Amino acid sequence: MCQLLGMNCNVPTDIVFSFTGFATRGGLTDEHKDGWGIAFFEGAGVRLFVDHQSAIDSPVADLIKRYPIKSKHVIAHIRKATQGHVALENCHPFVRELWGRYWVFAHNGDLKNFAPTLDGSFTPVGTTDSERAFCYLLQQLRKQFGDVAPPLHVLRSAITTLTTEIASYGVFNMMLSDGSALFAHCSTRLHYIVRQHPFNQARLSDEDLSVDFSTVTTPNDRVAIIVTEPLTTNETWHAFNSGELKLFAEGMPVD
Amino acid sequence: MCQLLGMNCNVPTDIVFSFTGFATRGGLTDEHKDGWGIAFFEGAGVRLFVDHQSAIDSPVADLIKRYPIKSKHVIAHIRKATQGHVALENCHPFVRELWGRYWVFAHNGDLKNFAPTLDGSFTPVGTTDSERAFCYLLQQLRKQFGDVAPPLHVLRSAITTLTTEIASYGVFNMMLSDGSALFAHCSTRLHYIVRQHPFNQARLSDEDLSVDFSTVTTPNDRVAIIVTEPLTTNETWHAFNSGELKLFAEGMPVD
Repeated sequence: MCQLLGMNCNVPTDIVFSFTGFATRGGLTDEHKDGWGIAFFEGAGVRLFVDHQSAIDSPVADLIKRYPIKSKHVIAHIRKATQGHVALENCHPFVRELWGRYWVFAHNGDLKNFAPTLDGSFTPVGTTDSERAFCYLLQQLRKQFGDVAPPLHVLRSAITTLTTEIASYGVFNMMLSDGSALFAHCSTRLHYIVRQHPFNQARLSDEDLSVDFSTVTTPNDRVAIIVTEPLTTNETWHAFNSGELKLFAEGMPVD
Repeated sequence: MCQLLGMNCNVPTDIVFSFTGFATRGGLTDEHKDGWGIAFFEGAGVRLFVDHQSAIDSPVADLIKRYPIKSKHVIAHIRKATQGHVALENCHPFVRELWGRYWVFAHNGDLKNFAPTLDGSFTPVGTTDSERAFCYLLQQLRKQFGDVAPPLHVLRSAITTLTTEIASYGVFNMMLSDGSALFAHCSTRLHYIVRQHPFNQARLSDEDLSVDFSTVTTPNDRVAIIVTEPLTTNETWHAFNSGELKLFAEGMPVD
């Protein structure tokens, strides 16, 4: 299995603190050492960093921890290989373009006998069940809505139906974003927290590191962090229900 | 206008030496300061680094210069904006998937009134003429060959026809790779060199740096470097003809 980390904010924010704790699980405090990746939206553009080295050993992960890239939508993943060998093309997040937007996807779980018919519009490059699910999801969205993105609430409903279908093949904890909103689906384990004014100190559970967010934020900032297992020991994280899809926009879940 | 750098090798090779000279043109010895990017194939996977900062100021470019990522196919680009504002989504190289392979594309030049009909299979995310040309090129390849890649000589012929068509709209120096071969088309300026046994010392023209390739290679290594303007002062570079498309594989041009 793997672990997921997502961030959705109302203003561009760096993810250095959360990524530092998360990356520690990639080979040091946990066993997720078969590669990692992180994607940052900057406007419509995406910076994608992937590496088949463990997040602990990777010079690229080290750069991320030191270089505060500010983004409103981030998806990160550390991998423990279940299907697909350890190779760059099997590292999450995956990126494809649909409707003139980049879509970023990462998955934690394992799908059994998931072999949907793919029509060639989105074809996996690697050998993971995850990339197959991503290609199927985008293919079905394009089939359903043609060449123009539907309104967000219609899209949410369609993605809910598709994730429920895919999750019937196994564990499908996943995050998906087009840089305007972030979708997160939980089969088994996913937690989130919304940090907003008044900001407090947070203490990482995986590394001896604290940050006082009140010193690095303005009262208007709002940040949602979504992660497989809570990252801090002194904050209250909310568990997703099994089978639940949440949509995050502007730093909070949308009802 | 922009500048292009490509590398095609028979064994995975790092591009630190050439990129160091090339990146210097991104804001120091030349005016190409509106972003930069580099894509490395590792097997079927791609590492893409893009930045809207100039290559001289970018911490990510600094990482590339210090971290020897080994690859058989590399495409890099430094940008002087002509069409499209300075933003991450307008930074080359661009990446799309076709036939279950990632395709990497970068362009130097300026296309006038190039507004092809796009059917939605590949849609630009940014606002450059370059990304539009890339989307059109992949769309036409998919239309022509369906869901399965043709043999390389057939593909080469199709890409030659398409690049000639696109180049009729303006300057279209470009590089394109799917990780198995590298295509380079010249409208105005493109040079290449093949380095192979016996290797010699090379001296960068943009920075006071030399490398003796005989100390870092084996007799079987072969590396083709393709670039807008020659990178070294003591080697013989070959100029492309205007309108010429070359295919590089295993570190050399294929006749």
